[in-house]
Amino acid sequence: MLPDLRDLIGYVAGILTTVAFLPQVLQSWRTRNLSGVSLTMYSLFTTGVALWLGYGVLLDSWPIIIANAVTLALASMVLALKLIHK
Amino acid sequence: MLPDLRDLIGYVAGILTTVAFLPQVLQSWRTRNLSGVSLTMYSLFTTGVALWLGYGVLLDSWPIIIANAVTLALASMVLALKLIHK
Repeated sequence: MLPDLRDLIGYVAGILTTVAFLPQVLQSWRTRNLSGVSLTMYSLFTTGVALWLGYGVLLDSWPIIIANAVTLALASMVLALKLIHK
Repeated sequence: MLPDLRDLIGYVAGILTTVAFLPQVLQSWRTRNLSGVSLTMYSLFTTGVALWLGYGVLLDSWPIIIANAVTLALASMVLALKLIHK
């Protein structure tokens, strides 16, 4: 496969797994209903994404830094809403 | 920083963002309550993780393949439970 197409798949994958959390943030913000959302999941996930961000900084990798900074912001919002409305 | 410590941060980050979905699967399975879980989020996320898995195959990268195969299995279970119990 062409390296360009392979890179494209990686970029689309990264965009999808990052922006995926936006509809969750919007829904949770709008409905204030987070009863089905796991607090343990978002605690582990935000910690993991923060470590990915640190890994990106140590590696000086902007794609890792940018993707994980956005995901960290969105996942932290879900975690905060869960802590407020649980 | 020592490269070994940097790698360790990456491995811990990968383990956390992967296993994070396990408590969500267990809670959703047990309670059948997925009212606060965003269908759009899990639709975008599982598609993205499937593409990450394909990217790992194309790159012949076992860490990417293993992490995303596990995440794909767990996120697909949440998506399936959401579709059943929405």
